[in-house]
Amino acid sequence: MADVTGGTRNGDGPVDLRSDTVTRPTAGMREAMAGAEVGDDVYGEDPTVTALEAEVAALFGHEAALFAPTGSMANQIALQLVVPAGDELLCDADAHIVTYEIGAAAAYGGISSRTWPAVGAEIDPDVVAGMIRPDGYFAVPTRAIAVEQTHNRGGGGVIPLATLRELRRVADDNGLALHCDGARIWHAHVADGVPLDTYGRLFDTLSVCLSKGLGAPVGSLVVGSAEKIARARFLRKRMGGGMRQVGVLAAAGRYALAHHVERLAADHAKAARLAEAVAPFGVLAGAVRTNIVPLDLTKHPLDAKALAAAARAEGVLVSVLGPRTARLVTHLDVDEAAIDRAAETLTRILRA
Amino acid sequence: MADVTGGTRNGDGPVDLRSDTVTRPTAGMREAMAGAEVGDDVYGEDPTVTALEAEVAALFGHEAALFAPTGSMANQIALQLVVPAGDELLCDADAHIVTYEIGAAAAYGGISSRTWPAVGAEIDPDVVAGMIRPDGYFAVPTRAIAVEQTHNRGGGGVIPLATLRELRRVADDNGLALHCDGARIWHAHVADGVPLDTYGRLFDTLSVCLSKGLGAPVGSLVVGSAEKIARARFLRKRMGGGMRQVGVLAAAGRYALAHHVERLAADHAKAARLAEAVAPFGVLAGAVRTNIVPLDLTKHPLDAKALAAAARAEGVLVSVLGPRTARLVTHLDVDEAAIDRAAETLTRILRA
Amino acid sequence: MADVTGGTRNGDGPVDLRSDTVTRPTAGMREAMAGAEVGDDVYGEDPTVTALEAEVAALFGHEAALFAPTGSMANQIALQLVVPAGDELLCDADAHIVTYEIGAAAAYGGISSRTWPAVGAEIDPDVVAGMIRPDGYFAVPTRAIAVEQTHNRGGGGVIPLATLRELRRVADDNGLALHCDGARIWHAHVADGVPLDTYGRLFDTLSVCLSKGLGAPVGSLVVGSAEKIARARFLRKRMGGGMRQVGVLAAAGRYALAHHVERLAADHAKAARLAEAVAPFGVLAGAVRTNIVPLDLTKHPLDAKALAAAARAEGVLVSVLGPRTARLVTHLDVDEAAIDRAAETLTRILRA
Amino acid sequence: MADVTGGTRNGDGPVDLRSDTVTRPTAGMREAMAGAEVGDDVYGEDPTVTALEAEVAALFGHEAALFAPTGSMANQIALQLVVPAGDELLCDADAHIVTYEIGAAAAYGGISSRTWPAVGAEIDPDVVAGMIRPDGYFAVPTRAIAVEQTHNRGGGGVIPLATLRELRRVADDNGLALHCDGARIWHAHVADGVPLDTYGRLFDTLSVCLSKGLGAPVGSLVVGSAEKIARARFLRKRMGGGMRQVGVLAAAGRYALAHHVERLAADHAKAARLAEAVAPFGVLAGAVRTNIVPLDLTKHPLDAKALAAAARAEGVLVSVLGPRTARLVTHLDVDEAAIDRAAETLTRILRA
Repeated sequence: MADVTGGTRNGDGPVDLRSDTVTRPTAGMREAMAGAEVGDDVYGEDPTVTALEAEVAALFGHEAALFAPTGSMANQIALQLVVPAGDELLCDADAHIVTYEIGAAAAYGGISSRTWPAVGAEIDPDVVAGMIRPDGYFAVPTRAIAVEQTHNRGGGGVIPLATLRELRRVADDNGLALHCDGARIWHAHVADGVPLDTYGRLFDTLSVCLSKGLGAPVGSLVVGSAEKIARARFLRKRMGGGMRQVGVLAAAGRYALAHHVERLAADHAKAARLAEAVAPFGVLAGAVRTNIVPLDLTKHPLDAKALAAAARAEGVLVSVLGPRTARLVTHLDVDEAAIDRAAETLTRILRA
Repeated sequence: MADVTGGTRNGDGPVDLRSDTVTRPTAGMREAMAGAEVGDDVYGEDPTVTALEAEVAALFGHEAALFAPTGSMANQIALQLVVPAGDELLCDADAHIVTYEIGAAAAYGGISSRTWPAVGAEIDPDVVAGMIRPDGYFAVPTRAIAVEQTHNRGGGGVIPLATLRELRRVADDNGLALHCDGARIWHAHVADGVPLDTYGRLFDTLSVCLSKGLGAPVGSLVVGSAEKIARARFLRKRMGGGMRQVGVLAAAGRYALAHHVERLAADHAKAARLAEAVAPFGVLAGAVRTNIVPLDLTKHPLDAKALAAAARAEGVLVSVLGPRTARLVTHLDVDEAAIDRAAETLTRILRA
Repeated sequence: MADVTGGTRNGDGPVDLRSDTVTRPTAGMREAMAGAEVGDDVYGEDPTVTALEAEVAALFGHEAALFAPTGSMANQIALQLVVPAGDELLCDADAHIVTYEIGAAAAYGGISSRTWPAVGAEIDPDVVAGMIRPDGYFAVPTRAIAVEQTHNRGGGGVIPLATLRELRRVADDNGLALHCDGARIWHAHVADGVPLDTYGRLFDTLSVCLSKGLGAPVGSLVVGSAEKIARARFLRKRMGGGMRQVGVLAAAGRYALAHHVERLAADHAKAARLAEAVAPFGVLAGAVRTNIVPLDLTKHPLDAKALAAAARAEGVLVSVLGPRTARLVTHLDVDEAAIDRAAETLTRILRA
Repeated sequence: MADVTGGTRNGDGPVDLRSDTVTRPTAGMREAMAGAEVGDDVYGEDPTVTALEAEVAALFGHEAALFAPTGSMANQIALQLVVPAGDELLCDADAHIVTYEIGAAAAYGGISSRTWPAVGAEIDPDVVAGMIRPDGYFAVPTRAIAVEQTHNRGGGGVIPLATLRELRRVADDNGLALHCDGARIWHAHVADGVPLDTYGRLFDTLSVCLSKGLGAPVGSLVVGSAEKIARARFLRKRMGGGMRQVGVLAAAGRYALAHHVERLAADHAKAARLAEAVAPFGVLAGAVRTNIVPLDLTKHPLDAKALAAAARAEGVLVSVLGPRTARLVTHLDVDEAAIDRAAETLTRILRA
């Protein structure tokens, strides 16, 4: 089978640093997909999906997991599991679940949210504890706290295990659920050396994504207790996520789990190299711990759009997050030569 | 590449007549998937998805179309397009959208619904017209009428073109949108010889499915105006349906459109043969027009569960819809030999 | 205290037959309101509200009741009590809850609804039973059945006690709740002589209204178990119905219960007289059992708007329900002389 | 007519400092209610309600206003006017609308919310501006900013006019609506001497309450453009707030506007006296500007529950807001003698 994925992996095409969602399946992954055994997963009869779900549940020390078409749906199903309509979720103001899932928690789950200020991946458990409203008649009852590991808008920052343990305690003290948007939890695992099941056991529910750093084309999972996941299966259908012979996608996910987790260290190293290149220009928004390089152009003559346009003109794609904020993301499809090229290009642009 | 699809298509395994959703991709379809050119479709950069969307829009005489993970999501996005939260949708009481999409229209779209009684695929446009509530202050304003072509619980019945035209007039007279749940509209096209774009132009929005009779593993599309589909893209993301390198699935869909539409006539013939086999036992619930054989066991000693159990014991799978109702569905994965086997088995069971 | 209510009760002003919601408090009722002992009812400290709630609960043989600003809110709170978001309610297609509460069940409760055809107040329990979807994974689970006693759009028709008992059995057999929109249940009680608590004990929840035939200015109650009403109190606050010194309204309600229930027989007699007057013109839509006279002008030269305009010109106000349907409603504020005047006026107009 | 309001106003009963919602109508107000001209306000025919609405609209320099049963419903209607389901509202984390309206914005309006940290009534417009998400495809579009004047949990603090003007500019720059929860805007008007219409013109929508400091038993209004209020009337009906002869309550509101606005200065003075009494014990949580005295017991041996219990035992009622936070509120029903009594009692308890 010919490699039809093209792009940077072969040295041609732009260096796409916009997001790790842009990765295309590798030849090996495509082969796994092509040969996947499938069935009707709405009837629970797709053996590849079932195997993937069991595998991911075990990885995170939980009883069960459920495949979903996107990380957004996996998160929203989990939130609907832990927060009844009209009740309250607490998270940070830059969380993916209240930013990039475009209002789904409120629109579809009826979930009320209040947020603490986002400062990278930093969390002060006392601030969170101070926001909780008790169950009762006068105020909206808080039901869950959500965190994001690693934190997308927080520059790929990693929440320390000790902080998570503190939050678990806060949740327990107040009878709340703790959810982890773990779309990039693999990167935290690789960066901090924390076993996935150590993370997993801290949370009532997690979402984990196969389609970002891990390089699968499509797919996320909700992870939790058997009871929660049975309900999640019902909610997935209501959300329109009950697909049929979806083992073709699950096969890519299984391949990614087998081949693309530990290699994330390489992506982290690539991000560090980019950070080193741009740091001298005072545009690094924070420490780079994983595969995201957050840029703050407040003190630079170029704004985010200008930087992105100049880079694009030279074959380097950059994400604009705000008037003065931008982002570089490393992944499977940008090899070291491409990173060299990007570092050189960005240096040239920022110096000018 | 080995054929890994197994099952009835190769003569072994049970004859699965539960639904046409159970089909597994053929060798040719798998090849198309394996070689698909892909990109990040959330960024609108997956060429295979884009091509499929353009192709389907053109087939139905509309400006645009949008790929969605399931028929349920395609329907729900369309309904959210045409009915603002709190306003009203009219459809029949057996419609897929108010039955098998488990409350999504109300739960996620806030859409109020009233239903007319379901009698197969029959619709009396005057009854529908009589249910409409005018826009105003006192009553819930009706905004849309939805029909299902062919009708799933209506035994695969085909709504006559003349009836659809009457409904279009009713909708126009009252300023309403008309939506078609066209998951199996291909079967209506083949059964009645009505061109797809003749159907398409009658509706403001349609959903069409690649994963039932057409045999693709996953995928449906919403079809409509460019403006509606731009909004649909936003709503798809909110629903958690914005997938990434989903060209692997779109490739299967394109293959299905090229190879699996006109062959539905064969599935209809197979259904007719099954109908002929069971008719003598007085269990046929209505005329068989497409690939669904509805069974009514009210006057037969066996109830639906008993029939299904007896059939399963002999390698024939049947869907139970109610205490005395069941269903046989023909599709790509049951060949003529399998149909012979099923007809013989069912005859034997019903006679006993 | 001067009687400031004016209007028909004093012989002047138009004869307002649009609805029994137009009644204004009598002098005695105003006196009760003026002297009402009040407190902060959000804190549960309004003695007049508390007394009214206890009184109404007892009348219907239930543990508890809750005051609400409107019949719509009372119904919607009850529906949210018995149908979780996304699950299903069955009712008739002309029910107040899916017509005049303008989509609230879906918009705010996320409640999915299917409807059986409305034919006055007639209900075929077998039709209802046939619509129920079982709890499960594939279809929306039906959770409740709602009926309306008397039936507003059904011409004030009374559902026979035997039918209600059949529906109770259907609900029990399927594990469903049974709700009664009893805004005018007082009229059924007076017309059929069924004790209020006989009705009450048949339902899981009821709403009853003080502000229609009973003549209070504002107010309805939700009736049910202590547990349900505790939850209702929370939901009332969420709906924005938690008022403060609302004993001034509750006092009117208590007065209405003491003085205005049994007198409804007079309103029924007035409706019968109106019915007798219009019957010869073939415009009576059905038998008149209570205080509503439904008109069907299909076979009359005048349409509903023309009739209403002609009547208004002569000081008689009539409700237009559809192009050819209209309604006369008798109540506390139209005395016998006014009815004579209206009967004469309508006769003259219909004859012309 | 005898004064039946009883309580502190007559020198007996406890000194109720829990909230200004506990006030009971005065004799003059009761007289106004008893003689109110009324009609069916759902039909727009209650002259007293119509007069009140016109009066309040004019006071705030807007075209129209709408009576609602509670401040919560007035706020929620306004939020539904300015934020489409699924889109975003920004407010502070202690705002009444995301605390005491128990999730209604999300549950019923589908409104997504993010919050900035609450520090009394202080707002940094730059922090708010930095939170706005642009309209687009990737993130939830921010549609409105809400402020609370005076701020309930913020100790009755007053947002300076200059800050509100800055926020108006931020809203305009980003195409957002600005809503004011003005339940106690009367107090800000009296404390800062800002005309009500100067406030009013800064906002797209306001809610104002008659039932707190102004002493009416029930009622709030939504204020805005004629177009918005027409839609609000529809939404009020959907929320279950369309009451009938509600002029009896509106009359109380008109009386309150005529007699109880400027006298709030006296309540502010009473609060200042209470503040002076407790300040020596280090429990004053912030400057007292209006009628609320916020207590912070973090450094005091008594916690909030203990303080409240001790005070209650001596006939003084205090609100507990959190383990170490409490609140005293002055109002129409606590006269100067009662305040003296409360000051003395609290001094004694805090000293012990």
